[in-house]
Amino acid sequence: MPNEDASSPIPTDNPVVVEVTRGDMVESRHRAAYAVCDGEGRVILSGGDYQRPVYARSALKPIQAIALVETGAAEAFDLSDAEIALACASHSGEPRHVETVAAWLARLGLSESDLECGPQLPPHAGSAADLLRAGRAPNQLHNNCSGKHAGFLSLAKHLGVETKGYIRLEHPVQQRVLGILESMTGLDLSDAAKGFDGCGIPVIGVPLGNLALAMARFADPYDQPEARQAAVRRIAQAMAAEPFMVAGSGRFCTEVMQATSGRALVKTGAEGVYCGALPTEGLGIALKVDDGATRAAENLMARLLDRLGILDEATLARLRARLEAPLFNRAGREVGVVRRAAENPF
Amino acid sequence: MPNEDASSPIPTDNPVVVEVTRGDMVESRHRAAYAVCDGEGRVILSGGDYQRPVYARSALKPIQAIALVETGAAEAFDLSDAEIALACASHSGEPRHVETVAAWLARLGLSESDLECGPQLPPHAGSAADLLRAGRAPNQLHNNCSGKHAGFLSLAKHLGVETKGYIRLEHPVQQRVLGILESMTGLDLSDAAKGFDGCGIPVIGVPLGNLALAMARFADPYDQPEARQAAVRRIAQAMAAEPFMVAGSGRFCTEVMQATSGRALVKTGAEGVYCGALPTEGLGIALKVDDGATRAAENLMARLLDRLGILDEATLARLRARLEAPLFNRAGREVGVVRRAAENPF
Repeated sequence: MPNEDASSPIPTDNPVVVEVTRGDMVESRHRAAYAVCDGEGRVILSGGDYQRPVYARSALKPIQAIALVETGAAEAFDLSDAEIALACASHSGEPRHVETVAAWLARLGLSESDLECGPQLPPHAGSAADLLRAGRAPNQLHNNCSGKHAGFLSLAKHLGVETKGYIRLEHPVQQRVLGILESMTGLDLSDAAKGFDGCGIPVIGVPLGNLALAMARFADPYDQPEARQAAVRRIAQAMAAEPFMVAGSGRFCTEVMQATSGRALVKTGAEGVYCGALPTEGLGIALKVDDGATRAAENLMARLLDRLGILDEATLARLRARLEAPLFNRAGREVGVVRRAAENPF
Repeated sequence: MPNEDASSPIPTDNPVVVEVTRGDMVESRHRAAYAVCDGEGRVILSGGDYQRPVYARSALKPIQAIALVETGAAEAFDLSDAEIALACASHSGEPRHVETVAAWLARLGLSESDLECGPQLPPHAGSAADLLRAGRAPNQLHNNCSGKHAGFLSLAKHLGVETKGYIRLEHPVQQRVLGILESMTGLDLSDAAKGFDGCGIPVIGVPLGNLALAMARFADPYDQPEARQAAVRRIAQAMAAEPFMVAGSGRFCTEVMQATSGRALVKTGAEGVYCGALPTEGLGIALKVDDGATRAAENLMARLLDRLGILDEATLARLRARLEAPLFNRAGREVGVVRRAAENPF
């Protein structure tokens, strides 16, 4: 469990970290908690109440994917980098995402109807419009979580268990995933708060600091069992090799992994969560915006990466628009910016 | 200017008023400031820093529409209730909205290309899908502000000035609108913060309490000049008569005005603003969610209406899902709720 930073007591109110301006004025403000941890649970940098449990939502996908690789399922089904990256993805439903998941399921002898994530219009606006223009309806393959679900189905097949119901907490697939989450966060989660994610799988409340610890162990699994070390390195390598598959066109996750050449592996989650792993530094990052806003989570993650010295000059040049993100109106005029709040120290 | 409530000093941090649960836990929290005022500027109910300036965004549309009616433009062009309601609208771009604005512009001898709001895919998902399925592209008529802009064009025509550039602060149309805003809020706004709205018109920073005062004067314009009184009553009557035109299918504004039969006239704005006028009570409401979330603004407005005794049993039955709004995942399972924060007194 991450150590407390003795010099700064945990505040009840999380600090305002991001502000959104319009013209002469700050229009909106976002609060967040964040923690950067090393592999021994030392908190290197923090703000707000990082001991409060949060649902990591989709930001947990790289940790969840460990089960797929560690059990040998990925090897047994000869999964590619693109497929493993999709298992860690909240993809935008662009054709390459959808086609890759469909081909993967076919190789398992399964199809779209075996997914239990529900249908979703592609998050990528152009792909959604193309689908509708073609007179087609969105299906479960377009769901941003379809790659993660294909991973769960692969694991069920490999374990030799019934695939149906693989999203239920008591199913062997979710139990395996839960066990890995407990070991990576260093927590017994049997009494943790629970709920259901947008795609139907369980979500488990984990203190933000322990999420950062899990990400630090993902960044550098030096003290993990050998199979875990190999699995984590395989996943990290796949995310770095196929950043488009983890998110999509114009998406922050994809852009950061491309710009840093995998020196920062980052993953977004719903309701303003972001996790990151810095393999070279052996550090893990976890943040949660109080109100759930993605625009604030992205801005804070960009600034944390900058603060941690991950962004060299060339990378900074590519990510500058993420540190101070301009807002445009429908006529294309720049009307404001998403940026560091005046109150925030970095 | 609204009086301060001497018994409760203005806090710097706005209170947490809305929480979003998932399963066993609160997942996200929203802070807001709010003020309920009578026509003499007495603050009846408030929370947070209601003296901080905010951009009212589209929540100001009913006030902006006063210029259209007060000058005689609405009468000269024989505007219907539906058209006046559209001048106050952030409509969903459903066919009836779009067709009504198109016919109105045609009567002015103008067309879609005279609008300066920019194109927008209809906010109503079904209408957007139908448009794309038909192989058509969204245009400026689909912009949720096209009715307000048709109102501005009507005013320009009636004033006998150039229509081009009607969105610019120095244009006679915007100057007329600004003058009305100053008189309704009781403020000299020449030094107020300014910026541009999503649809290109100026936005002006106004303390939330003064917005509530403007809405109280809109609710009951008893002390206003005769032409203003008549204009406000005409607009209020049009909004009550055509609530669909003010927003659209399944929208909170439409639902509230339908359920209360116009006893509460409410109007949403971007970045978590909501304004309301209670004609029978002579009260005005203004609220702004710090982080800009619409889900929180709607929930707080519903609860303020309930707290103010506007919702009788039949109305409550229709709006209950707005006071505790269930959240569903893509598979249709109820996974959480948007509700009163534990910290909030009502």
